[in-house]
Amino acid sequence: MNEQALYLINYGLYIVGSKTDSKINAQISNTVFQVTNKPNTIVISINKSNYTHEFIETSKLFTVSIIAKTAPLSLIGNFGFKSGKNVNKFEKISHLLTKNGLPVVLEHTLGYIECRVVNSIDVFTHTLCVGEVIDAEIFKKDEPMTYAYYHEIKNAQAPKSTPIYQAPKSSKKYVCKVCGWVYDPEVGDPDGGIKPGTEFEDIPDNWVCPVCGAAKSDFELLK
Amino acid sequence: MNEQALYLINYGLYIVGSKTDSKINAQISNTVFQVTNKPNTIVISINKSNYTHEFIETSKLFTVSIIAKTAPLSLIGNFGFKSGKNVNKFEKISHLLTKNGLPVVLEHTLGYIECRVVNSIDVFTHTLCVGEVIDAEIFKKDEPMTYAYYHEIKNAQAPKSTPIYQAPKSSKKYVCKVCGWVYDPEVGDPDGGIKPGTEFEDIPDNWVCPVCGAAKSDFELLK
Repeated sequence: MNEQALYLINYGLYIVGSKTDSKINAQISNTVFQVTNKPNTIVISINKSNYTHEFIETSKLFTVSIIAKTAPLSLIGNFGFKSGKNVNKFEKISHLLTKNGLPVVLEHTLGYIECRVVNSIDVFTHTLCVGEVIDAEIFKKDEPMTYAYYHEIKNAQAPKSTPIYQAPKSSKKYVCKVCGWVYDPEVGDPDGGIKPGTEFEDIPDNWVCPVCGAAKSDFELLK
Repeated sequence: MNEQALYLINYGLYIVGSKTDSKINAQISNTVFQVTNKPNTIVISINKSNYTHEFIETSKLFTVSIIAKTAPLSLIGNFGFKSGKNVNKFEKISHLLTKNGLPVVLEHTLGYIECRVVNSIDVFTHTLCVGEVIDAEIFKKDEPMTYAYYHEIKNAQAPKSTPIYQAPKSSKKYVCKVCGWVYDPEVGDPDGGIKPGTEFEDIPDNWVCPVCGAAKSDFELLK
């Protein structure tokens, strides 16, 4: 058996939101697909230990915000590598609330789908939630993010033919111990103000991981 | 509500196979995703009226063959626009049978995943089948087909800057009444021996739709 065959399945990348009586929360998910069109239903898979799982169980409602291909890693970091148990993920994020009070992310998203849970199924560590679509809107015509693209840019290399390429002094890459993002001096972190060609050692100490917000000290040399 | 938001969900493209005691069958599916990794489980959504649905209900087993991005439209047409009730879809298709006797497509595929159904859920017109992965192999390292890419090439336009471009005498496009594939004289059907620049009227009468195999007479002018 070669389990890597599972990596050949294609996914998009979404922010799944829900609520309780007093709070809203959301998380990154790549497991969203349409099941039927009469009526329109979609299914999502949520880890039982996730905070959003509790919210969906309580409200029987969820939203799926569709991430744009051009979204920065920090958006995925904010919703994907933190728990709503510890932080308010929406504190600095532009969002709206649907009529039912569910959160929809307005930054770097193309639209959303709102669902009422009509069925669910227990699958070991996860729950498959089947939702009937009760509302859906498009904000912007653009390409949605794919999981494959996200992985590609996580370890992006700037081709030598591009204007941003600068020959590095070394090829020492550093990996974030929290989320696995790799700092490559050839690429830098332009979103975070670090130009291509900057050695990891030369990055200011207050710089943080563009994906999960971990400190510079949370990085280790990639071997 | 704008239902087109549902079109922003990303999918791959797969061939889902199953068997009964005496037959094998398979169909195209874009709704395949992994649910858990301890153990490895995946979920697929199958229309209850499909022949493969009966086969999976009977055997409680299914395979997912992962289509390569470079696969011709005819592969998708063979498994997607015909019913195993009327034709033997594997007659001209190179395939193997797993130890459990399930079909795996070897042409234009990257690998496969074999599953035993551990749970299922009824969702209106479809059944969600949860399968525990019992085998998986990779044949070839290459990019998997995405549903978005399939749609793109279905109506592909050859850019005027490419060597294959020839100015058409007209811009009359024809659409297949069976599967919706559009014949564009600017593009032709190179896989079927029809060069770019060929008017629909000039195509030989024995030519068939590259996707579903429908006759030339099954096409109508696209308005």
